[in-house]
Amino acid sequence: MNLLAAAKTRYATKAYDPARKVPQETIDGLLELLRHSPSSVNSQPWHFVVASSDAGKERLAKGAQGNFSYNAPKIRDASYVILLCASVDMTPEHLEALLEQEARDGRFAKPEARAGQQATRNGYVTLHRYEYKDLQHWMEKQVYLALGTLLLGAAAEGIDATPMEGIDHRALDLELGLREQGLTSVVMVSLGYRGEADFNAGLPKSRLPAETVFTYL
Amino acid sequence: MNLLAAAKTRYATKAYDPARKVPQETIDGLLELLRHSPSSVNSQPWHFVVASSDAGKERLAKGAQGNFSYNAPKIRDASYVILLCASVDMTPEHLEALLEQEARDGRFAKPEARAGQQATRNGYVTLHRYEYKDLQHWMEKQVYLALGTLLLGAAAEGIDATPMEGIDHRALDLELGLREQGLTSVVMVSLGYRGEADFNAGLPKSRLPAETVFTYL
Repeated sequence: MNLLAAAKTRYATKAYDPARKVPQETIDGLLELLRHSPSSVNSQPWHFVVASSDAGKERLAKGAQGNFSYNAPKIRDASYVILLCASVDMTPEHLEALLEQEARDGRFAKPEARAGQQATRNGYVTLHRYEYKDLQHWMEKQVYLALGTLLLGAAAEGIDATPMEGIDHRALDLELGLREQGLTSVVMVSLGYRGEADFNAGLPKSRLPAETVFTYL
Repeated sequence: MNLLAAAKTRYATKAYDPARKVPQETIDGLLELLRHSPSSVNSQPWHFVVASSDAGKERLAKGAQGNFSYNAPKIRDASYVILLCASVDMTPEHLEALLEQEARDGRFAKPEARAGQQATRNGYVTLHRYEYKDLQHWMEKQVYLALGTLLLGAAAEGIDATPMEGIDHRALDLELGLREQGLTSVVMVSLGYRGEADFNAGLPKSRLPAETVFTYL
């Protein structure tokens, strides 16, 4: 299983080689993978900001100032940087756009199929908005599902990646005008190739043992 | 990119062929992949309950009664079912276990490395516990990261999968004694092979277009 080998050898890159660029077609494939990530009831409550130019990376580096400045080189020296964002509401417009897209893509042979999908998705949104009262977290969990997809995909392609929760969400939201678009920054991933200064590259991976994390019924 | 093709053709299986079993070595590989999923500051705030026997699946089906009974066949007819659970606290014991495991795995050449890792991880836990006040959601987000890993891994192996948020968390927590173990159920994934009654198998995948979900800097 090649994917398992990739998962076992991937790690959070601490220093990139700024001279090495990820091929455009590899990035295009990873973005397609990200776009095809699953999400609960196909809600896709996300948006992805992709920076490859120096100017673009500099804008994202505004999220790595002050306490988060240790992350700035992982943004500036990377080949590509992706800011994964979540919606801040599940609006009627977004729900309608999803349904229209599913209709265009041919998922509804009969009107009942469309009505059923609409009712199911609206039911989950209502559940999280009014009963669990965790709509924002529910949407952000879908972003983490996409994050898992992206990190494994990058590993499978031999691309080094650094997931960064340590970012200034407010600074990024303001820099990119995310809030006006109904979005907020969640987590950043830089992509590239490890540099010689990457102390994490030579260290073994560590995970809790199988007997600790699994129960078999 | 084979993984992209797998991601584009995977889907949430709605009906399994109860006669077909996933080979043990394939499941073993997927569980290893799950165990090696990344998590923020390597916190691994999770536990996975794996059912393959009829009796075990019946226990997990207790989470699919009442409003969630539409999910019961996807549990009973699947080959394997995995309940992904989150910790309900980030205890000093868990933090110490992580650090000890990392030491055993050889990640600390010098005492400063160990102290640094401890300080970084504790810093994130403190941030989420006391400042963001979202410790539970933060831990559950890591479970979704693992969910993304598992779903893509299953697709890459040609295994059909159904992620299920529609489960009775309380019933499952009580049935499995999860709360006494400092755990709570988050999301379930059944694995197997699609059956003839699977209406979703013939439907095209639908995602919002690239121009909607990406911004390029």
